[in-house]
Amino acid sequence: MEFPSKLISNAVEEFSRLPGIGKKTALRLVLHLLKETPEDVRIFSDTIYKMRKQIKYCKQCHNVADSDTCNICESRTRNQQQVCVVENMRDVLAIENTQHYNGVFHVLGGVISPLEGIGPDKLNITSLLERIEKKGVTELIMALSPTMEGDTTVFYLSKKLAEKPVTITTLARGVAFGGELQYVDEVTLARSIATRRPYENYLVKKD
Amino acid sequence: MEFPSKLISNAVEEFSRLPGIGKKTALRLVLHLLKETPEDVRIFSDTIYKMRKQIKYCKQCHNVADSDTCNICESRTRNQQQVCVVENMRDVLAIENTQHYNGVFHVLGGVISPLEGIGPDKLNITSLLERIEKKGVTELIMALSPTMEGDTTVFYLSKKLAEKPVTITTLARGVAFGGELQYVDEVTLARSIATRRPYENYLVKKD
Repeated sequence: MEFPSKLISNAVEEFSRLPGIGKKTALRLVLHLLKETPEDVRIFSDTIYKMRKQIKYCKQCHNVADSDTCNICESRTRNQQQVCVVENMRDVLAIENTQHYNGVFHVLGGVISPLEGIGPDKLNITSLLERIEKKGVTELIMALSPTMEGDTTVFYLSKKLAEKPVTITTLARGVAFGGELQYVDEVTLARSIATRRPYENYLVKKD
Repeated sequence: MEFPSKLISNAVEEFSRLPGIGKKTALRLVLHLLKETPEDVRIFSDTIYKMRKQIKYCKQCHNVADSDTCNICESRTRNQQQVCVVENMRDVLAIENTQHYNGVFHVLGGVISPLEGIGPDKLNITSLLERIEKKGVTELIMALSPTMEGDTTVFYLSKKLAEKPVTITTLARGVAFGGELQYVDEVTLARSIATRRPYENYLVKKD
């Protein structure tokens, strides 16, 4: 596609660098911005650059934050001895949205993946080990992807922590709520039979 | 969704103002930009603001342009007496991409739509009438949407130009290439029977 203006073609180029945005979508976004006032577009572009330039990462958990320590790590009502290990900020958001977790987090920044050249040294593992030592962490909840790389990372961490007085747990794997049995894959189904639990009615709140 | 940082939440807000981008997609874009260097994000945000601020519209055809007159209007190899009337820049691009049109354009900026409060005075109609007078335009090709509003606009223009020595044509309507007859709507099919043409083999190039 040839654009009537270099300015348009540059802007389309920049938008289509983003994931999931092709040339046609990029053009639609550009045409939308052309209809807005220059002031609105200035706010748009400033907000995005400011976000990248001023963003900070929490010294303790490596989650994004506005200051040196994030709100979760600073909170006095949260259990600082219970640490949930996740890959990235999106996982923190997902767990926070359940409103059922009252511990803190540690963002690894990825998982060990020899194929992509990501070794343990490229992840926030040293700081996790130090944190466990210093803060007297009692439980480490591994909430990593159920993939080969995720499992490798959990295995690596469990080896590193074998001598430490910290319990390592992982998220329960099984049939999802609302999932129909016939569509569940064999591995998940087999494991959820093997790890079956006594019946509990989750709908009735216990005290 | 509550974000761990005001910067992130502002950026997500700005992205989700764009058409077709919801909160989840916006977050994905923001997380992608967070992984880029600040310099790359500066280029992204600058390009977009520059586009909006510096964009010009061609004095003659109202298409976007880098200077006061667009390349198409300035071209000496194009037929300046044949004007294709379109709604917006995207339609110009679509027709240009066919590489089968050698005339020039006139961007109306929309179609007459009383429901949305768009009257003839909000469109680039006065300049079109002046242009027809001044440049001695011989043919006006109406390439507007086949909707009530598009048809109203064509009707309005044809009335305005009834006394002028200019031929008004519209794009051929009919069964699209590759379209199966059974899926064509009745109006299109009925009209394409009524406006049938002598057989021509388009695949054999004539001189």
